[in-house]
Amino acid sequence: MAKSKFEYVRLFETEDRCLPNSWIVVRVDGKGFHKFSTEHDYEKPNDLRALSLMNNAAMSVMEEFKDICLAYGQSDEYSFVFRKETQVYSRRSAKLSTNVCSLFTSAFVYYWSEHFPTSKPLYPPVFDGRTVLYPSNQNIRDYLSWRQADCHINNLYNTTFWALILKAGLTPVEAEQKLKGTLSGDKNEILFSQFSINYNKEPEMLRKGTILVRRKVPIALPDGGTREKSQIVQQHTDIIGDEFWNENNHLLTIS
Amino acid sequence: MAKSKFEYVRLFETEDRCLPNSWIVVRVDGKGFHKFSTEHDYEKPNDLRALSLMNNAAMSVMEEFKDICLAYGQSDEYSFVFRKETQVYSRRSAKLSTNVCSLFTSAFVYYWSEHFPTSKPLYPPVFDGRTVLYPSNQNIRDYLSWRQADCHINNLYNTTFWALILKAGLTPVEAEQKLKGTLSGDKNEILFSQFSINYNKEPEMLRKGTILVRRKVPIALPDGGTREKSQIVQQHTDIIGDEFWNENNHLLTIS
Amino acid sequence: MAKSKFEYVRLFETEDRCLPNSWIVVRVDGKGFHKFSTEHDYEKPNDLRALSLMNNAAMSVMEEFKDICLAYGQSDEYSFVFRKETQVYSRRSAKLSTNVCSLFTSAFVYYWSEHFPTSKPLYPPVFDGRTVLYPSNQNIRDYLSWRQADCHINNLYNTTFWALILKAGLTPVEAEQKLKGTLSGDKNEILFSQFSINYNKEPEMLRKGTILVRRKVPIALPDGGTREKSQIVQQHTDIIGDEFWNENNHLLTIS
Amino acid sequence: MAKSKFEYVRLFETEDRCLPNSWIVVRVDGKGFHKFSTEHDYEKPNDLRALSLMNNAAMSVMEEFKDICLAYGQSDEYSFVFRKETQVYSRRSAKLSTNVCSLFTSAFVYYWSEHFPTSKPLYPPVFDGRTVLYPSNQNIRDYLSWRQADCHINNLYNTTFWALILKAGLTPVEAEQKLKGTLSGDKNEILFSQFSINYNKEPEMLRKGTILVRRKVPIALPDGGTREKSQIVQQHTDIIGDEFWNENNHLLTIS
Repeated sequence: MAKSKFEYVRLFETEDRCLPNSWIVVRVDGKGFHKFSTEHDYEKPNDLRALSLMNNAAMSVMEEFKDICLAYGQSDEYSFVFRKETQVYSRRSAKLSTNVCSLFTSAFVYYWSEHFPTSKPLYPPVFDGRTVLYPSNQNIRDYLSWRQADCHINNLYNTTFWALILKAGLTPVEAEQKLKGTLSGDKNEILFSQFSINYNKEPEMLRKGTILVRRKVPIALPDGGTREKSQIVQQHTDIIGDEFWNENNHLLTIS
Repeated sequence: MAKSKFEYVRLFETEDRCLPNSWIVVRVDGKGFHKFSTEHDYEKPNDLRALSLMNNAAMSVMEEFKDICLAYGQSDEYSFVFRKETQVYSRRSAKLSTNVCSLFTSAFVYYWSEHFPTSKPLYPPVFDGRTVLYPSNQNIRDYLSWRQADCHINNLYNTTFWALILKAGLTPVEAEQKLKGTLSGDKNEILFSQFSINYNKEPEMLRKGTILVRRKVPIALPDGGTREKSQIVQQHTDIIGDEFWNENNHLLTIS
Repeated sequence: MAKSKFEYVRLFETEDRCLPNSWIVVRVDGKGFHKFSTEHDYEKPNDLRALSLMNNAAMSVMEEFKDICLAYGQSDEYSFVFRKETQVYSRRSAKLSTNVCSLFTSAFVYYWSEHFPTSKPLYPPVFDGRTVLYPSNQNIRDYLSWRQADCHINNLYNTTFWALILKAGLTPVEAEQKLKGTLSGDKNEILFSQFSINYNKEPEMLRKGTILVRRKVPIALPDGGTREKSQIVQQHTDIIGDEFWNENNHLLTIS
Repeated sequence: MAKSKFEYVRLFETEDRCLPNSWIVVRVDGKGFHKFSTEHDYEKPNDLRALSLMNNAAMSVMEEFKDICLAYGQSDEYSFVFRKETQVYSRRSAKLSTNVCSLFTSAFVYYWSEHFPTSKPLYPPVFDGRTVLYPSNQNIRDYLSWRQADCHINNLYNTTFWALILKAGLTPVEAEQKLKGTLSGDKNEILFSQFSINYNKEPEMLRKGTILVRRKVPIALPDGGTREKSQIVQQHTDIIGDEFWNENNHLLTIS
């Protein structure tokens, strides 16, 4: 069996190493999740079970890849930020995106029943993935700000849209019509005057999305003492302003 | 909320369109499946449940992507061949590899219980993925021959290795020692003389792997007539020689 | 002098090997040659000195790179076709484009005075370069057809345009206006009826561009015998139809 | 003439935009200049005419590309640093490398006679080019330090090597033998004790290479006043330490 005669085909594989000293983001995105969420009776505008399943899947990814220093999720997407100096998979772009994407998907299906105990997915859900590089600290902060601003804009819209449908009895087409061209202030006003909803008092997880970071936490020892252990914690806070970054200033310094 | 101010970060995403008029292969590979197979009590040298689960996951991928004209699987890997002219995802490399890889993984977990009814995976299994281009028909045939030759070499080794352990009582180290430096003929001889196994009579799925192709099959109509329908069929035949390609000559001609 | 401390910066260089088994074309294009040709009093519509200088520069490139099997030039551009199997510079894209581009430029300046004996260039002329891959024989033929069709279209236009200006006394704006929306037949008709020019009798170098190929030519030996030697020859013939390729069928077969 | 039928071949060209917000370096390197310098009787260890011709060619490049903020040259190579934010040629890698490389080559031939008045090059000289990205200020400084350290190491070696040949009458093989395994201190010692050469007093252009930067210089006006004008100036100073960067701190800040 002349194996060697065929081995030349390996030369057709291409190198795809990421530029050194740059932040590597792998973002996974649900494929066709508008349809998927409808078919699986996701609650509107937000389904807490679905969000906690997303967070669970993201935790699995972050536990596996120690070089992910921060993850940010909202809706059906999650961004994983590898530290600038990571050498995981020799920084090969496709290795990073497919491994993260596969593990995220796998965990999503695997942990489904813990979050949706009464049903099984109707078919295997899919997430796509991409690798993007950001050279500077400002760039990676702006990337995360972009995603959090997107979260805010979509969630304010969806909260108003579904209030109009579920509470005011509008059809989706009527609700869309009503919101066309409205600014943030308009939507806040509709929520408050028509539904007595103060948008700023909505749960932070919905308004801000979920940030995963590693935190040193004290662990009680049998002898009564404590030791520190690194643990992944969830936060739902603003990451656009400086406060988060001042409190987590290790994130943007070379470790 | 100044969304626009952050949107510039999209410019950091790169184009990765595959060269036109070239075969696109996406190969998925189990991550750490040596360990995974041990932890999940895969039968040795081959676990038919695991192979049928792999084939099931591959069928899901091929049903979703109509432009995959052939898939080839063996052990914990599967290669998906997109036809040369495909425009799926504008031929973007990362889109193709992450979507195929995510769906394969998802289906693998989703259909697990149909093939392993008595147990659940201990943790979410992972597959990585890569996209490789092959310009000519000879190149894509050689790629597939490479994978099938690999299947043959590994399966002959594993069959002998595990016969020595399970039937002759050798330890893994002893079995490895005994096989060191042996040629195919030697292993065939060990199997036959020591275990009365004629390797060439072993199941073809194990010796050849699994080929998935689309086939027109006749469907009975209520009125007693028939019509043709495209269906994915499994084969376990040689794809190194010309016979398979002569019988499936539509595969290598532009459709 | 701690050299080693800085050497890590080499890791920032990226691999750019071309896909194997594909035609590699390097095309060089004059930068700002509309202006350059005016400033250097190129004759209109075609300056035979400029074209022979272009051909001279291209010959230099082809003499240096034995793996260029064909070159095609017209106007201020030249395409160099490396054979599919070439391993020059390990098929690195930037190495190929910059070396070809630099040598072409260098020869253009170096041989200038042989073609323009009475003047020196006013400033250093520049050509840019690019590397493009074509997987199949049909693709590379279509690429060359594209360039030759471009040559035809531009030359027919320019011939008519400059006849209107130089022989009929129109201004450039008037000539442009007159040709707006005309088809090939219209331009042929203008040339014939107004200027008694039968376009098809114009020199082939202008209508077809220049093809450079290697040809075995007999060399007379001192003893009265002959031996064959490979030599680069210029042709000005159609490369869109099959005839050229039938006569040069070695070009498209693996050597 | 069916042009459109062939135009599809343009789709085979690939995108190669450089990551935004990163320093872009284009380095040109003489091809076969060891041989070229011998054939053209370059003085050893350094030929001032050749170095001034290199600088002249680099000035031409820097005058053309306003977004080159610094250039560094030594021996037969020159590095051009584009500012991080440049949008020249939409940051397309091949466009940048081929244009810079072509102009550098063109100017080298064009201005040859101004530096070597009594001879013509024996054949067209060639430079290759490459584009490399550096994300951070530290990276770009380290890149330039790498090249200047290289200049130092090579020039110290060459100065000693040629002193041994030209002044002590050794053959090249003997000189090489004598220097094998020597450290910088050893070479300084040989130069001083054997040839009374204090290496640190050698011309800075030879020891440090040439830095080109833009400087605002006062221009006298007819009315007796002055105005500032940006001009390219040559320096031969250390760029490894902080001093140069402190004096030119505009280089590393966003303009």
